[in-house]
Amino acid sequence: MAISQGNSNGKLRIGVLGVGRMGRRHASNVAYSAPRAELVAVADPSQEALAWAKANLPSTVQYYSDSADVIQSPNVDAVLISTETSEHARLALEAAAAGKHVLLEKPISVDVDLSRPVVEAAGKHPELKIMVGFSRRFDASYREAKRRIDEGTVGKPYLIKSCTNDQYDSTGFFIAYSKASGGIFIDCGIHDIDISRWLLDVENPANLKYPKKQVTSVWATGLNAQHPELASYGDCDNAICVVEYENGTKCTFHLSRTAIHGHDCFCEVFGTDSKLIINGNPNMNRVEIRDIHGVRMESTPTYYERFRDAFISEVQTFCDVVLDDKPVPTTPQSALEAAKIAMALTHSFRAGKPVYFDNEGEAIIN
Amino acid sequence: MAISQGNSNGKLRIGVLGVGRMGRRHASNVAYSAPRAELVAVADPSQEALAWAKANLPSTVQYYSDSADVIQSPNVDAVLISTETSEHARLALEAAAAGKHVLLEKPISVDVDLSRPVVEAAGKHPELKIMVGFSRRFDASYREAKRRIDEGTVGKPYLIKSCTNDQYDSTGFFIAYSKASGGIFIDCGIHDIDISRWLLDVENPANLKYPKKQVTSVWATGLNAQHPELASYGDCDNAICVVEYENGTKCTFHLSRTAIHGHDCFCEVFGTDSKLIINGNPNMNRVEIRDIHGVRMESTPTYYERFRDAFISEVQTFCDVVLDDKPVPTTPQSALEAAKIAMALTHSFRAGKPVYFDNEGEAIIN
Amino acid sequence: MAISQGNSNGKLRIGVLGVGRMGRRHASNVAYSAPRAELVAVADPSQEALAWAKANLPSTVQYYSDSADVIQSPNVDAVLISTETSEHARLALEAAAAGKHVLLEKPISVDVDLSRPVVEAAGKHPELKIMVGFSRRFDASYREAKRRIDEGTVGKPYLIKSCTNDQYDSTGFFIAYSKASGGIFIDCGIHDIDISRWLLDVENPANLKYPKKQVTSVWATGLNAQHPELASYGDCDNAICVVEYENGTKCTFHLSRTAIHGHDCFCEVFGTDSKLIINGNPNMNRVEIRDIHGVRMESTPTYYERFRDAFISEVQTFCDVVLDDKPVPTTPQSALEAAKIAMALTHSFRAGKPVYFDNEGEAIIN
Amino acid sequence: MAISQGNSNGKLRIGVLGVGRMGRRHASNVAYSAPRAELVAVADPSQEALAWAKANLPSTVQYYSDSADVIQSPNVDAVLISTETSEHARLALEAAAAGKHVLLEKPISVDVDLSRPVVEAAGKHPELKIMVGFSRRFDASYREAKRRIDEGTVGKPYLIKSCTNDQYDSTGFFIAYSKASGGIFIDCGIHDIDISRWLLDVENPANLKYPKKQVTSVWATGLNAQHPELASYGDCDNAICVVEYENGTKCTFHLSRTAIHGHDCFCEVFGTDSKLIINGNPNMNRVEIRDIHGVRMESTPTYYERFRDAFISEVQTFCDVVLDDKPVPTTPQSALEAAKIAMALTHSFRAGKPVYFDNEGEAIIN
Repeated sequence: MAISQGNSNGKLRIGVLGVGRMGRRHASNVAYSAPRAELVAVADPSQEALAWAKANLPSTVQYYSDSADVIQSPNVDAVLISTETSEHARLALEAAAAGKHVLLEKPISVDVDLSRPVVEAAGKHPELKIMVGFSRRFDASYREAKRRIDEGTVGKPYLIKSCTNDQYDSTGFFIAYSKASGGIFIDCGIHDIDISRWLLDVENPANLKYPKKQVTSVWATGLNAQHPELASYGDCDNAICVVEYENGTKCTFHLSRTAIHGHDCFCEVFGTDSKLIINGNPNMNRVEIRDIHGVRMESTPTYYERFRDAFISEVQTFCDVVLDDKPVPTTPQSALEAAKIAMALTHSFRAGKPVYFDNEGEAIIN
Repeated sequence: MAISQGNSNGKLRIGVLGVGRMGRRHASNVAYSAPRAELVAVADPSQEALAWAKANLPSTVQYYSDSADVIQSPNVDAVLISTETSEHARLALEAAAAGKHVLLEKPISVDVDLSRPVVEAAGKHPELKIMVGFSRRFDASYREAKRRIDEGTVGKPYLIKSCTNDQYDSTGFFIAYSKASGGIFIDCGIHDIDISRWLLDVENPANLKYPKKQVTSVWATGLNAQHPELASYGDCDNAICVVEYENGTKCTFHLSRTAIHGHDCFCEVFGTDSKLIINGNPNMNRVEIRDIHGVRMESTPTYYERFRDAFISEVQTFCDVVLDDKPVPTTPQSALEAAKIAMALTHSFRAGKPVYFDNEGEAIIN
Repeated sequence: MAISQGNSNGKLRIGVLGVGRMGRRHASNVAYSAPRAELVAVADPSQEALAWAKANLPSTVQYYSDSADVIQSPNVDAVLISTETSEHARLALEAAAAGKHVLLEKPISVDVDLSRPVVEAAGKHPELKIMVGFSRRFDASYREAKRRIDEGTVGKPYLIKSCTNDQYDSTGFFIAYSKASGGIFIDCGIHDIDISRWLLDVENPANLKYPKKQVTSVWATGLNAQHPELASYGDCDNAICVVEYENGTKCTFHLSRTAIHGHDCFCEVFGTDSKLIINGNPNMNRVEIRDIHGVRMESTPTYYERFRDAFISEVQTFCDVVLDDKPVPTTPQSALEAAKIAMALTHSFRAGKPVYFDNEGEAIIN
Repeated sequence: MAISQGNSNGKLRIGVLGVGRMGRRHASNVAYSAPRAELVAVADPSQEALAWAKANLPSTVQYYSDSADVIQSPNVDAVLISTETSEHARLALEAAAAGKHVLLEKPISVDVDLSRPVVEAAGKHPELKIMVGFSRRFDASYREAKRRIDEGTVGKPYLIKSCTNDQYDSTGFFIAYSKASGGIFIDCGIHDIDISRWLLDVENPANLKYPKKQVTSVWATGLNAQHPELASYGDCDNAICVVEYENGTKCTFHLSRTAIHGHDCFCEVFGTDSKLIINGNPNMNRVEIRDIHGVRMESTPTYYERFRDAFISEVQTFCDVVLDDKPVPTTPQSALEAAKIAMALTHSFRAGKPVYFDNEGEAIIN
């Protein structure tokens, strides 16, 4: 690694930009759960957020209200961007320009076109590692599925059915959130899209007629089980998606904000030799209860309980990628491809008809 | 009941038409598992089939090679039609004309238009019970789901995801079968369609703007994981379907001929208060094995092991319907509506685009 | 078969003695679910019981208040004894003396010594089939376990852990019942004992040093989780048993009257090549519910929902045994051996020390 | 904290004694997964072990071949003892004498009498935290069970059935290991004993007639399913234990070295309001496989995969206990009580009879 030398102990010196809900968890993971990382700086414009950080993070960390101060700091090797989504792309570009490695919360942007410059920056700076935080790829169970596919015991995988069903929040938080998040296809579906692309080896040029065309068509529909008012945002609380990949595989997604029992992230991989199911029971722990309600297990309430370890693995992997100069597993290019699918699904849902992709890999929207 | 008096013991005297694979099971169920039925006659043109029947059924049964002899027999109150599908509609019409009650294996016909006369016959003969064998409706677990919906503990059901995944038969039997069966959407999907219509209360006029319009649109795609040659029949070995009902509910189906572990018939009902899953684990029995393959249960190999009891319950219900003059739970009209959806899905799959329904409840195919 | 000719259709003509709670189910099974049986007579001293029978059983059945009338009837080939336990042995002896085959509800008697004459009668009348209703042996899952053991895939089975946990009945019915039933070891444990003897091949002389000595020692303890008053009957509501068989295998039983979620009858078979679990989840049906209580399945409330099909299979097997002159699968001798273990466990529990068996196979109680 | 000041960052400076199989994991956990700990020193007489340590642990760690050097180091606040069992007690005493806090792998000793001085040392040094590594108490699922008991939703817990079934190791490693480990009751059963004591609140004086008498009686039997040669060590590969506590609760343990599918550590807690099951399915991850072997999940191969996070939580808890001066959750006194039960079970197994405890809490062995 020419640019990053790490600190005197050979650790990667990371600055975390944004210590809101997820940012706090990221900062704690960098500080306490990533042996090869050192948390050196944190930036957040919110005094409340910084107060939390000062009370909970190591005393050696430097605090800033302006992300630019972290990005420009000579003591920082890499930044972890966990600000509001609308800031992701801009900060990633600034960090790359400053020669910093970047671990970027998904999505790069709710607007596909704003994501493209980040992809270009990654292309222009091969010496920098720019990695997108698709946490599911770092989960032990998804990795086990990938391993089984790679070792061939699944046979040829031909279909994935993936569901992200968030526990219903009767406060309606996600309605207000809908506008900024880009809607259910982008905010929630991006994970399912990314996972299906990864497990189905969608990018593999050996299976593509046109090198850039990975998707044939997408189709989406939706309904509002709890919140009809989402219709006014062009959003829904339950969405059904079908994506057909150019390599002959297909997938369906069911995205939902209205699960009652908890966060239920369920994935089926159909292969010619076996079927894999990931998280068939979204159990919180290994405790089963037998009482007047029957035989039961409690569910993970949110994605965070489900993917807590994956977030740790993600930041540990980022350290390995930078310090050992390994390939980036979740590139901006890959995130862009996923985002194009999410956008096309949104369009299909709103227009009520399939969206096809051209030979350049772009959705044909008219 | 004016027409059917039953035999001297008050039993319903049933003649079984067709004792092939399923017909044998039906005949045995009538003879041995339906206390209110008496198996009085069996017809089959195959000498081999009749030989099986004579060896396995009660000695009091009369045997014929021609179904007409059973239909016209004054000792027969009702016929159970389990011949080849292509004979279903004709025999049902003959039986109705002869004043016999009819229990008819699904589908009425692979051709929707050939089904309509049976619907009309049922309308013209209110004194006759003409019932279609949608076996799943008689399964204890589907009935429990229906009960929970009806009692309100599911809240409002808004989405059903139903899968019928048959165990892969490497002999390719189902390829030859494809032509006669009408293809995967009709042969296999008709059950999922029927169950979704039942559980989602699709026929309820209170939720319909136009009394005959139950479906808004359907969309299907498919792939051949094992048998590319199915493409030449306009068929596939894996199909994905989306059906949007006029009452605002939706459903998806995954139909497959290529499950490895067994027959896997899986149904999820999403409601605002709970989600139900039917047959999450298609286990054959209550035995779990823990060995070098892990912790495991064996699966039902075919639909028959899964629905054995439902077939018995079906014929018992038919007896009750006739003898106690109860409403027919699975009418030809309902079967016709399901068949129209199956046909529209087939068309959507072949044409690669959604199919919409008009206000008269007919698919718009152009 | 010299004695029993069956009726004119070759069916076994059965008289049912006792149509109380279980007797009604047996009578219905004989009448409606056993194709090779004909229910010809029913006896019960209770007018209420007979009224139920007349309203629910075939019109051809003859009714009596005195069991002797059924036993002596020339139209009866076999009797099914489902009276109160205290009558079992006497009626079985009378039936055997009258040349009738016998299907006898377990236990033969709560008093081991009163069981011995029935064993002797069976020995003296090899032309008669005297079978004890150990229903679990006819359950599909226990049979599958037995099949796996016999085919060798379990390796050598060395340990069985079997539990019969009845749902807690807060009315305290089982307390009053305790006296007549012989207590938890006899009433409830007899099934676990019988199953362990069957699956562990305990009677096999090839593994015995002394031909009659099948048991080495037993040990039991208990507690009253809900009903301390059971102590005054020398009974308990939760019992722990250990039985050591002479062939080197062992087993433990947990008997309970205080399960909250339902009837939970759980059995583990440990072998050198695999472990089998029967009824790991005592689910009522195939419906899983996901709601505010988590991911759950409802349990079978009583043994009857769990073993409904086994009772049918039991009576069908009895018909086959008689009509086809097959060996009796559950002999009085076998029931006596199980009862001796149950008695020894009761003694161990009350005395607070192990009970050993002598070389003649009798418990050493001093 | 008078004695331990921690290092300049307020961290607890830990020296690890013994970096064999488990010691390596402990050292890594201290170094990389315990934010409040600093690994400052490691001792091991094995050059191979030290070489591993130097290659894998932080460069700031000091290495020694003699534990005494670590114990006497002024830079060490606490030691984690993970040497061979035979060294545990001696090193703990030395560390306490040197004013160091101690985290001690279980058991203190295979000889109960050698454990007593450690208990006394803990009593004499209230300013020191001496904690025994009963890892199961730090597992999230056992903790959840404890929480449910404490909050009252289980009602009164009256029975625990706990199993520790290790995967069969056909190399016979555990046979050689048997001598040093103290046998199956001590090596393996100590965890089940400890957990039952904790969950059943066995130490609570409110339920004890004599303050020191926690146990009424124990009883054990065993068999050798795979390794008859264990008999010559007074050991077995499968053991059944029953422990009766003075507070009226009971428990059973099944200890085994011969599980085929993996490490299976299964615990049932029976309460008057609900039953809890911990680890009903010892699944390795959230991946279910459906293939020719049925519907299955792979098991954790060893205790380490099952309890990896518990070991981390254990050392983190130790840091909190020392740095925040909290009560020790797993005291030497508690470990001694568990060891007395393990010894009594061993005796019962070898003598073939129950062992009773006197009012001073000592086993009556004659």
